[in-house]
Amino acid sequence: MLEKNRLWESVQTLGEIGETEDGAMMRVTGSQADKTARDLLVEWFEDAGLTVLIDPVGNIIARREGKRDLRPIVTGSHIDTVPAGGKFDGTVGVLGPLEVVRAWDDANIETDRPVEIVVFTEEEGTRFGVGLLGSLVASNQLDGQEALALQDDSGKTVEETLSDIGYDGSAEFDLEDAAAFVEMHVEQGPELDKQDTPIGIVDSIAGITHHSITVRGESDHAGNTPMDVRRDAFMGVAEFALAIERRVTETDGPTVGTVGRVDVSPNGTNVIPEEVKLGVDIRDADGDRLSTIVSDLKTELEAIAERRNLRLDWEVLLEVSPKSMDPRIRTELEEAAKRCSLDYLTIRSGAGHDAMNAANVTSTGMLFLPSEGGISHSPNEFTSSEDLFAGTRALDEALRSLATTKQTTPLE
Amino acid sequence: MLEKNRLWESVQTLGEIGETEDGAMMRVTGSQADKTARDLLVEWFEDAGLTVLIDPVGNIIARREGKRDLRPIVTGSHIDTVPAGGKFDGTVGVLGPLEVVRAWDDANIETDRPVEIVVFTEEEGTRFGVGLLGSLVASNQLDGQEALALQDDSGKTVEETLSDIGYDGSAEFDLEDAAAFVEMHVEQGPELDKQDTPIGIVDSIAGITHHSITVRGESDHAGNTPMDVRRDAFMGVAEFALAIERRVTETDGPTVGTVGRVDVSPNGTNVIPEEVKLGVDIRDADGDRLSTIVSDLKTELEAIAERRNLRLDWEVLLEVSPKSMDPRIRTELEEAAKRCSLDYLTIRSGAGHDAMNAANVTSTGMLFLPSEGGISHSPNEFTSSEDLFAGTRALDEALRSLATTKQTTPLE
Repeated sequence: MLEKNRLWESVQTLGEIGETEDGAMMRVTGSQADKTARDLLVEWFEDAGLTVLIDPVGNIIARREGKRDLRPIVTGSHIDTVPAGGKFDGTVGVLGPLEVVRAWDDANIETDRPVEIVVFTEEEGTRFGVGLLGSLVASNQLDGQEALALQDDSGKTVEETLSDIGYDGSAEFDLEDAAAFVEMHVEQGPELDKQDTPIGIVDSIAGITHHSITVRGESDHAGNTPMDVRRDAFMGVAEFALAIERRVTETDGPTVGTVGRVDVSPNGTNVIPEEVKLGVDIRDADGDRLSTIVSDLKTELEAIAERRNLRLDWEVLLEVSPKSMDPRIRTELEEAAKRCSLDYLTIRSGAGHDAMNAANVTSTGMLFLPSEGGISHSPNEFTSSEDLFAGTRALDEALRSLATTKQTTPLE
Repeated sequence: MLEKNRLWESVQTLGEIGETEDGAMMRVTGSQADKTARDLLVEWFEDAGLTVLIDPVGNIIARREGKRDLRPIVTGSHIDTVPAGGKFDGTVGVLGPLEVVRAWDDANIETDRPVEIVVFTEEEGTRFGVGLLGSLVASNQLDGQEALALQDDSGKTVEETLSDIGYDGSAEFDLEDAAAFVEMHVEQGPELDKQDTPIGIVDSIAGITHHSITVRGESDHAGNTPMDVRRDAFMGVAEFALAIERRVTETDGPTVGTVGRVDVSPNGTNVIPEEVKLGVDIRDADGDRLSTIVSDLKTELEAIAERRNLRLDWEVLLEVSPKSMDPRIRTELEEAAKRCSLDYLTIRSGAGHDAMNAANVTSTGMLFLPSEGGISHSPNEFTSSEDLFAGTRALDEALRSLATTKQTTPLE
């Protein structure tokens, strides 16, 4: 039997690792908090009788054998957080499955197929700039060596970082070998909460692009440099930020644009900014429109730079097309919800997820839990124990069905 | 005799302390580099026979006795730098006077009045947010205890910082006791370089205001939060920055406005900025217009915040009215330049200086050296050895005259 309290307790316990005084989560990839949380998860997985493997980019794979030697059903998410994030986010997609296998153990349930719980590395892209990192490698869309060579702001590589915390493994993990991938995650939007519905079944995930942009001008004295001779990198960035806001608002679609990261240098009140580094996030459900908007914004920034005598460097860090979820897995999730007598909504994800990468190589589906007030990536992010339990019940049903060879959905 | 090479060597030697690999100066108040540089200066002052005192806010006062017990002539400037600043800035206003007293020692010159060289603490305001800190206290415009309680971003106080580097002295230093104050500094503007003139004699210093502004919105997921429900603190700041630029450019005067410091939080590419802290610098030669502009910009930011559902906190960190230099000291400097056969320009300072504070309590003048290309607060800041020597010759003449009771300019 799934235990609601045991599930909630595990979320609370993991949520204390990396929690700051004001309740925010700071569990960035490779941090001490990340290591402590990973160690605890490995301990829990092993206590639940799972075999734990680590791959070269630090993905944790906890495997429960099946009765037959078939391709596994993989489920999982991530436990890294953005700076000052919340306790739920991807964590529920790791601890929900853990509760499921704990319950299976309690009830001596065996499945035909093996079931694997995966914890992906650096989903947020907070430290090394590339989001969905672990699943990009596990779906063969990013070369493992290339991923390991990525550097954080201090020049430290993914490889060094994983080695420091002891998560530089050598296991092979390839999502192409999975019969299916199912990810549970909080919605990070208001729909389920607004409609008081415990489960969202994702039909598609919006396309995501992340850009690292450097704008360079000239630093000079704030008092003695007339306005008309300045090459102020920050003023150029201000103009560009508003151009992004204007351009994405113009579409009649769900396009969004965010300048989430801004590093100004030298960053002194009385010094004209010489260089500003930006992290820009632009998303759209329509892949073609997304490309057009990004291209328009590049042109616009070039015009701003030309006018203000600034130099530019624009690097695309992440570019993932919109993804549809596999109709067979959606049906499995819908049937599972019905068997649990739980209402569900069909829902589009504006947020990107590791499931986008899995969808390139295997049958993939996603299940959302409500986020109170739609808030996420914030200390105020909250999913109730009831909703967490309901989603985990549906996940349990879906995983059992998917891992059974008698099932109607044909998986190889 | 003033020694050009000795003077240049001293600037180069001090310029190595806090120099980064790419030639930028990082000598922020209370840093290890600041301590090392202060220690070297104290050693040089003592080797030159000066008595060195430290006051409670870390101002260094190096005193050369006069033949008579009169109020001293004070000269000096500062050696702290902005992040990634240059080697010249205020440093020349400390090392020029050092060369002067070294030359006087060599030639056994005695003056009627004592001469004091002062090195002011935290002129740049880089670490503790309040510029001209040491001279604000020395001119009784800021309470010493209040200054000591100021904190840097990590919560460390001025008092703790000075104690750590051993510059928490107990000497009394009050610019009101000075017969006159003369500061030598680089121009930080292009005029002297453009007109190929070695000396600038300052007639007035523009008013300066520094503002610490916090804009608060709500952090949320960059993918799942529609544009129309966002409370994006950075977009509000972008709009405000352009409003500053527009407003100061509208005046027909030398008004300037700079957003030099921007700290975004949480600062993740895929998180809507919750809070942005700004350091804003607004200056004008006309004090009334400066007040009007600041007030207009406050109104404008309030309107932006209202429209975008953001909260504001606006703190004025520094507000110094425009200051005229004392005509008697200006005449002394002009006469000194003439005696050295050096051309000079009468010049307005857009940059603020410790001399602004001194001017409130004693007869004050300033002498500028050329800045190549007008660049300052940058690793590319440069003043030639020839120009440094020329300015120091004029300063030598002026100090000797001011410290002589036979002089025509009556000082008490």
